Amino acid sequence: MKKALQFYTAQRKKLLAFQYVGFLTSWDAQTEAAPGSIEADSAYQAVLSEMSYRLTTDPEFERCVEELYQQREGLDDVLRHEIEVMRKSISDAKKIPMEDYVAFSELTSRAYPVYVRAKQTGDFGLFRPYLEKIVDYCRKQTEWLATDDLKGYDVLLDRYEPHYTQKKYDAFFNVLRERLVPFVKQKTACPAPVPEWAKQKFDVSKQRVFCEYIRDVMCFDKNFGVMKESEHPFTSGIGTDDVRITTHYYEDDLVSSIFSVIHETGHATYERQCDPSLNGTLCGGGASLGMHESQSRFYENIIGRSSAFWQAHYPVLQKTFAPQLDGVSLGEFMSYVNRVEASFVRTEADELTYPLHILLRYEIEQKLLNGSLAVEDLPSYWNSKFTEYFGITPPNDTVGVLQDVHWAYGDIGYFPTYALGSAISAQLYHAMSKDFDVEKSLLSGTTKQINQWLGEHVHKYGSSKYPDEILRIATGEDFDPNYYVDYLIKKYSKDNLA
Amino acid sequence: MKKALQFYTAQRKKLLAFQYVGFLTSWDAQTEAAPGSIEADSAYQAVLSEMSYRLTTDPEFERCVEELYQQREGLDDVLRHEIEVMRKSISDAKKIPMEDYVAFSELTSRAYPVYVRAKQTGDFGLFRPYLEKIVDYCRKQTEWLATDDLKGYDVLLDRYEPHYTQKKYDAFFNVLRERLVPFVKQKTACPAPVPEWAKQKFDVSKQRVFCEYIRDVMCFDKNFGVMKESEHPFTSGIGTDDVRITTHYYEDDLVSSIFSVIHETGHATYERQCDPSLNGTLCGGGASLGMHESQSRFYENIIGRSSAFWQAHYPVLQKTFAPQLDGVSLGEFMSYVNRVEASFVRTEADELTYPLHILLRYEIEQKLLNGSLAVEDLPSYWNSKFTEYFGITPPNDTVGVLQDVHWAYGDIGYFPTYALGSAISAQLYHAMSKDFDVEKSLLSGTTKQINQWLGEHVHKYGSSKYPDEILRIATGEDFDPNYYVDYLIKKYSKDNLA
Repeated sequence: MKKALQFYTAQRKKLLAFQYVGFLTSWDAQTEAAPGSIEADSAYQAVLSEMSYRLTTDPEFERCVEELYQQREGLDDVLRHEIEVMRKSISDAKKIPMEDYVAFSELTSRAYPVYVRAKQTGDFGLFRPYLEKIVDYCRKQTEWLATDDLKGYDVLLDRYEPHYTQKKYDAFFNVLRERLVPFVKQKTACPAPVPEWAKQKFDVSKQRVFCEYIRDVMCFDKNFGVMKESEHPFTSGIGTDDVRITTHYYEDDLVSSIFSVIHETGHATYERQCDPSLNGTLCGGGASLGMHESQSRFYENIIGRSSAFWQAHYPVLQKTFAPQLDGVSLGEFMSYVNRVEASFVRTEADELTYPLHILLRYEIEQKLLNGSLAVEDLPSYWNSKFTEYFGITPPNDTVGVLQDVHWAYGDIGYFPTYALGSAISAQLYHAMSKDFDVEKSLLSGTTKQINQWLGEHVHKYGSSKYPDEILRIATGEDFDPNYYVDYLIKKYSKDNLA
Repeated sequence: MKKALQFYTAQRKKLLAFQYVGFLTSWDAQTEAAPGSIEADSAYQAVLSEMSYRLTTDPEFERCVEELYQQREGLDDVLRHEIEVMRKSISDAKKIPMEDYVAFSELTSRAYPVYVRAKQTGDFGLFRPYLEKIVDYCRKQTEWLATDDLKGYDVLLDRYEPHYTQKKYDAFFNVLRERLVPFVKQKTACPAPVPEWAKQKFDVSKQRVFCEYIRDVMCFDKNFGVMKESEHPFTSGIGTDDVRITTHYYEDDLVSSIFSVIHETGHATYERQCDPSLNGTLCGGGASLGMHESQSRFYENIIGRSSAFWQAHYPVLQKTFAPQLDGVSLGEFMSYVNRVEASFVRTEADELTYPLHILLRYEIEQKLLNGSLAVEDLPSYWNSKFTEYFGITPPNDTVGVLQDVHWAYGDIGYFPTYALGSAISAQLYHAMSKDFDVEKSLLSGTTKQINQWLGEHVHKYGSSKYPDEILRIATGEDFDPNYYVDYLIKKYSKDNLA
């Protein structure tokens, strides 16, 4: 075993180095590289990806992982988990016929520009043949990767969020359908108009100053990661010591960049607070997509859209933009940042209506995979279901079925993790509130106590455990979607959010 | 041979991908990475460097290079040159005993922080034992790598600038000593004071705007590379399609950033104008350090400090900073940017006194290597020689013998390429002037015609030929330092530089 361990450790070092390369090249492409250089740089990146891929598909590596797996009882907890995950990922990769894998990569490469054109022109017909092939491949994938425990859609769901299968998601989305859909219908019946003060222009350099202030409020140590600008905000990094975020400033939107920064700093805090001993392993970083999203949304919505948070920081915002917010009370500001309205586009949705966008996608993915919905009928199905949940009908497919890129990338089974993240954040909030008064801690001016609790109960484990295990350790319970719906209904039933 | 060629091409693809990684990681470290992340990132970089190193030291790669070398007559010119260079570099690497190589890497790693401390405190004694060992190693290196043609200092010189040996450099530096030293003494006897207008504060955001304008004047296509800021300006990139530069803005210096941008855009133009067919080879990029420096200095000094250039652009500068330069004539501005003064620090020296700083270092490196100067006597020798050439004596070793980092890195033989670059630029200028009226072309407002000439006569070859060959092709002559001294004496003999 000693020899296997040595070999494994050496390969892992290289894998981590390639992860660093992947992070840096993608960060560069999205924030810095000039347009003309993208093509040439992509060619180098492809060579590096192949080198990295060959490390994990090396038969000697596979033998070594198998040997360690057979003797896993002798490994420490972190390495045992890592070896289990690695063994499954090698085994899954081997189950997919190489020619299908290559054909699918080519398909999604070709599908992407067609999808972009289809979205721009609102012409679903352009994208339809590609999506049909993508769905076909995903269906085949569920057959190749099926196990005794996982079949059909579950195979895909488990890839994006281990151990979360239809059984769990169905229970979750049923609660949403039963309790949240009627509540949302009631709350969106008469949306409040956007207040006049929010329609001003807000100087971008002042927004920058305030967003750096927010990073300080969230106790992010800037010695370990810059903030830049990109088209879409994101968090990127490697290990606990290099964690970067981006945001996007809009002159005609005061709060968009602020909530992006709170959201991304939530992701970044998760990465920063992993146990540093995980840095040399493959168990650093968040446990799953859903767990990561639970952290970003915890900070963005539960903390960032709370009255306690803004009691401490609204005066600073007013001062930064003086005199533009002089006549705007904290109450008016809070109503604005918690404004609810039925809208067509998921990424622009408010906290309350957001999960229904995911509910719609979850139902559609199920039907596409089990064949009860044909791709050609997708636009009309989308529109009728959308009308049912939101009471409004998309005027075109650009803001309807074509709005998201995920399916064009071949990602079926990804969407549910977004709603799951919100639901987990509410369950964590409930547990945290038993330990200390969250609102009171926010009045102190920073998120220090909150960071500490999440660090101790969630972040420190990195991805050395499965997300459902971490949730159980942190809250003492299995996933329970009622905390989320309770939270939303309680919050949005109030007349005055300040 | 077909099999060897296939293997070689596959390895080369990986080597280029690692070059891309090297470029990107170093760019990131110097422009973006937060201080706290440097250590963790360096560890990944070390793993990647080792992987790249193992590619070239792979015995199969060596056999393959040897096979291609034996059949080199059947290869195209570029590949033949590449194989020759690769074979020499593999053969050189093998001549150095591994334990010495490792010990030297460790020595320079340890020497660097000591050097920094020594420079800060002006205490040469701290650095002395390290420099003694570095000189010892370099002397041993000249023995390991000696050939029938190359011995002693020549071994080191040839590593930094192929085919430029003491015989050539001696001829060059003799001309400097005989013709330039007395001229400089005369010109620096009564330096003009810095004019009052130059002591104003110049808004950095206006400097940024003007520097972007300069990149347009030099016809640099910004679609292929950004400009950022860093402590020390540099150019970095890979291939012809990703070429980036940095500069540094000082509020109390109007022209520092401008000449940095002209200098770095000179380097960048060289990279951009290599023949695109060289992109997939190891023969892209500049031919040598000296050739690269010849291009940056051509643009910075011969073009950028010329009256014709500023006749076109000084009005734009005045407008950008209006009203700060309203009373300053073009003639006054030209006198300022061509101001000559004996000074202690090489990197801050003007065009005329600069080469004497290199002359001093060249003489010292010779003596250190042949043992006629002991490291312990270095500070006093430096100061006495400095006084002889410049007429002023360094007040301490910080601005004397400790000012440059090169020797701490183990780079002996590097300095001469700086002066060589300036000299080559003057020889190219002479050849170019036979083909068209350079000053007249500058009055058109861009460097387009100059770029074209350099592209056609120098840049397109990349590093597919040795630098002396390219100079011969471009000028029809071997290297001749008199063009340089003629140029300097002619320019600085004028009373009015406008």
